[in-house]
Amino acid sequence: MQNVQGGVTAAKGFKAAGIHCGIKRGKPDLALLISEVPATCAGTFTTNLVQGAPLKVTKGHLSRCNTVKAVIANSGNANACTGEQGLVDAETMSNLVAHELGCCSDQVLVASTGVIGVNLPMDKISRGIGLLASILENNCNTEGFGAMEAAKAILTTDTFPKECAVRVPIGTSTVHVGGMAKGSGMIHPNMATMLAFITTDASISKHLLEKALAGAVETSFNMITVDGDTSTNDMVLVLANGLSGNETITQENSDYTAFCQALEKVTKELAKLVAKDGEGATKLVEIRVKGARDTASARSIARSIARSNLVKTALFGEDANWGRILCAAGYSGVQFDVDQVEILLGDVVVASEGRGVLFDEGLAKEALGRSEVLITVSVGSGPGYASSWTCDLTFDYVKINASYRT
Amino acid sequence: MQNVQGGVTAAKGFKAAGIHCGIKRGKPDLALLISEVPATCAGTFTTNLVQGAPLKVTKGHLSRCNTVKAVIANSGNANACTGEQGLVDAETMSNLVAHELGCCSDQVLVASTGVIGVNLPMDKISRGIGLLASILENNCNTEGFGAMEAAKAILTTDTFPKECAVRVPIGTSTVHVGGMAKGSGMIHPNMATMLAFITTDASISKHLLEKALAGAVETSFNMITVDGDTSTNDMVLVLANGLSGNETITQENSDYTAFCQALEKVTKELAKLVAKDGEGATKLVEIRVKGARDTASARSIARSIARSNLVKTALFGEDANWGRILCAAGYSGVQFDVDQVEILLGDVVVASEGRGVLFDEGLAKEALGRSEVLITVSVGSGPGYASSWTCDLTFDYVKINASYRT
Repeated sequence: MQNVQGGVTAAKGFKAAGIHCGIKRGKPDLALLISEVPATCAGTFTTNLVQGAPLKVTKGHLSRCNTVKAVIANSGNANACTGEQGLVDAETMSNLVAHELGCCSDQVLVASTGVIGVNLPMDKISRGIGLLASILENNCNTEGFGAMEAAKAILTTDTFPKECAVRVPIGTSTVHVGGMAKGSGMIHPNMATMLAFITTDASISKHLLEKALAGAVETSFNMITVDGDTSTNDMVLVLANGLSGNETITQENSDYTAFCQALEKVTKELAKLVAKDGEGATKLVEIRVKGARDTASARSIARSIARSNLVKTALFGEDANWGRILCAAGYSGVQFDVDQVEILLGDVVVASEGRGVLFDEGLAKEALGRSEVLITVSVGSGPGYASSWTCDLTFDYVKINASYRT
Repeated sequence: MQNVQGGVTAAKGFKAAGIHCGIKRGKPDLALLISEVPATCAGTFTTNLVQGAPLKVTKGHLSRCNTVKAVIANSGNANACTGEQGLVDAETMSNLVAHELGCCSDQVLVASTGVIGVNLPMDKISRGIGLLASILENNCNTEGFGAMEAAKAILTTDTFPKECAVRVPIGTSTVHVGGMAKGSGMIHPNMATMLAFITTDASISKHLLEKALAGAVETSFNMITVDGDTSTNDMVLVLANGLSGNETITQENSDYTAFCQALEKVTKELAKLVAKDGEGATKLVEIRVKGARDTASARSIARSIARSNLVKTALFGEDANWGRILCAAGYSGVQFDVDQVEILLGDVVVASEGRGVLFDEGLAKEALGRSEVLITVSVGSGPGYASSWTCDLTFDYVKINASYRT
């Protein structure tokens, strides 16, 4: 497997475009992703009981239609808690795209992100969709067009676009998997926790694509947290158009394993970018838990630590307050022997056998001062391990969120 | 029932003292509470797997001894994650007090709060206990001595001492219930979430005292959250010395009901004070949930909203972002009909039937600008209702917690 340039258009036969249509002030806010040929599609969605209109519409389309041609996504407005009109608007977005592409509207999926409770400015979106279609038509022969523009147009409070792509040999073919994602608030593991769109030119059955996505999400998007809030609009979609020419993957053989590895690499990379760009964040933090009874236990402990406001503020202050880390492990609901716990900040052991050890505060502060911080928590000698990713909790987090609507 | 002045010494036969012994810099840090006569005692303790040494010692004493004479509590150091030495130190604290009072050491309970992972300065504490005993001896005839000093000595990052007391007629007697508590970080419902010591001159069986405390905690301390972190040292104790002369309560009769109401009044008032004084808080926020299927559902929704960082930062910014409130209700895990939800900020309806309504932003901002904010969320027409209390998430929360140890 190799990293390659690009994002959602790294795989053959995908094109994208992103523009400013007028939902946000002076920033890109509407993205269109298309596949030359109908693509197999799988999706995972927020577990929040309150679900945005685009999620309801997209789930309906996915259940009625086996293939997908396009995804239309806007930022600046979540189209959530918007009543009947919200559903009409989301359907209209897919109808407009379907009309431009000459496909069935069920083949167009819809996603939105931004403020909750305000109806979409459909006149602006309608004109925007027309413009996006023209752009893509004019560039129909430009290989890999528009990924970065699309990645920018789905952002909300994010500070940078998030893309990544890999290629992997499968049989005699070269398969690409690429994607884009947006954070950066309402990020908490419980499926998806943000928007991510992944494309691949692999040929794979719908059933196995769904299974591969579920597995990849479990160790990536479900293991990040920024603020503990699971959004109403979270969605991860993967589109597989088969243009790499590989023999269709219909069994859990070595081809499937290779594909899963590539997909997990992309979802993990995107998830880490989302955590790194958490609202107000100054650093990416990995919580690595080892020695738990099983994987599920390790994940619960890792998430509990990653979610702790007290751990996250101490990380901002670069304060080696390991007591808060142990405390958060303690209320994770998982059983472990406290007297066996060892905690490392970077490679500095700060606690052992469940209690503090003498350590060099300077070295610990240095470990916490890096832009990527690793915290390792060993809770015993079991086989369970897991990583979660989070960011620090800063003045800017409060600033950004104290007046998000205005 | 009537509010009365004072805290832990409002009830007959209780005395307290608080001093600076040298654990913290220039602030009171050691408190002693005694009952003239042995008192029946009940306690609830943190559910965190990691438990401070004082909790282990106090639980042991409570299980071995039917009555309690004193509680010794220090702030500035939690004596948690301190290994064998921590247990020895906690036992030593109770031994020293028992020696001064001439009682059995099992009759002395111990509590600590502060930094995790550092051993106690036992020389300072030992001298401090001697001084506390002298103070109490010198004031053995001063009715209600020392409550405020003790309330100050258990504080950590709190900005004000927390006391309250009531009196209630039971039979032909007048019973008093009073208490003190400390916050203000690591506050999250899962029993206790902080230190609170409650005293009463009621006479009541141990079994019913335990039952009354469990009930009172459920609607008070378990319904507040500051930061979502359940501490390692949380403890609520209630001591009943019987000096009011009421007929001992041994059945769930009207006397028991009157006692429960008084106890709940005190726990709720203390809990609200803890939420109001949450780290960095500028306001107390009540989340009132109505119309849920049952009480447990209402509580889950109320807690989920109270815990949301996004709701809490919007409250700081006085931003009527009701979408975040509905979102947090949505991920509470409770089933309800989103289309029936109504949300009020103060008395301003901001959402109805699960979606936004036109409202006066000025009035909403005014409601959010008060020092005590009420948010009402109606989720249907069921009988379940509950209140939770929280505070806003502010720059000062981050500031306080970025460098707590140093």
